[in-house]
Amino acid sequence: MGLSYQILPVNILENDQFQPDFLAISPNNKIPAIVDQDGPDHRSISIFESGAILQYLGRKTGMFYPTDEIKRIQVEQWLMWQMGGLGPMLGQNHHFSRFAPERIPYATERYVNETKRLYGVLDKQLVGQDYVTGEYSIADMAIFPWLLRYEWQGIDLADYPEVSRYIERMQARPAVQKALAIQ
Amino acid sequence: MGLSYQILPVNILENDQFQPDFLAISPNNKIPAIVDQDGPDHRSISIFESGAILQYLGRKTGMFYPTDEIKRIQVEQWLMWQMGGLGPMLGQNHHFSRFAPERIPYATERYVNETKRLYGVLDKQLVGQDYVTGEYSIADMAIFPWLLRYEWQGIDLADYPEVSRYIERMQARPAVQKALAIQ
Repeated sequence: MGLSYQILPVNILENDQFQPDFLAISPNNKIPAIVDQDGPDHRSISIFESGAILQYLGRKTGMFYPTDEIKRIQVEQWLMWQMGGLGPMLGQNHHFSRFAPERIPYATERYVNETKRLYGVLDKQLVGQDYVTGEYSIADMAIFPWLLRYEWQGIDLADYPEVSRYIERMQARPAVQKALAIQ
Repeated sequence: MGLSYQILPVNILENDQFQPDFLAISPNNKIPAIVDQDGPDHRSISIFESGAILQYLGRKTGMFYPTDEIKRIQVEQWLMWQMGGLGPMLGQNHHFSRFAPERIPYATERYVNETKRLYGVLDKQLVGQDYVTGEYSIADMAIFPWLLRYEWQGIDLADYPEVSRYIERMQARPAVQKALAIQ
């Protein structure tokens, strides 16, 4: 969106997310969270939850979040689909496929199957359009990062040709490349 | 919000959610979804994802979803907290605590612990205010239904006195009583 920003790492392996100064910004003790020193009425504001941050920044800049009500609803549906489905379920897939201290076939299969269903829904949605709701939006910003870990998720991208092309299309965007280069 | 509505049950045990007429409204094959025949520009519109439905209806009616930007951000943060955390994680708790065909201690404990953490976050947020962001909003509408199943979730409400009083407060609202009476 062309806004200037400073990244402040929160080391969750060191429990930084439970420090009082971070909890004051993010009471759910999770990343991401932002502080905008030039918020509404030029007052400083802090915001947690990626979906809320995206909606706020979209309104603030007038970019990637349409004000036309029909287009706005399209974007919100797919932003919420990521918030309530793609993000949490792929997160559980990552946990049981890679991080859990024991292998639990039932749980792994549950989340791999749900991941495949969600990729299928997205693949169908992308037929005939470059981005999830047509024009590039905050919904794409929310969805795309989860797709980068398809190899962790038991996904063969050959089964989802539209998603496969979408990942390439997203990776070609300069701002996405800039974000992915951040270590 | 005082809008008239008609409820159309979708029998997920009969796979109604995969019927083409339902998928046209809800491509993610999930409930809830709505059709508003008096949508933007008086055109019919369909919307899926509970969070997107709530934001749309809040804008349409000017109720329970502030237009003041600072208040709106507060509501959106907690709506997203429900969409991305409370809903999906309590849903997994329900699955492993009650519905999975085998008992898996690791998975059950994972989601019961996350449920307790989320109740703790909510309990803290409710200190000194009647609703999650002060005034009653679409965030409360999203959060409250999940709390009704505390007995399924391994939760002792005595540990969360603010949440306990919040449940009573919500249950006393006439529109909530009307909704809970729907079978």
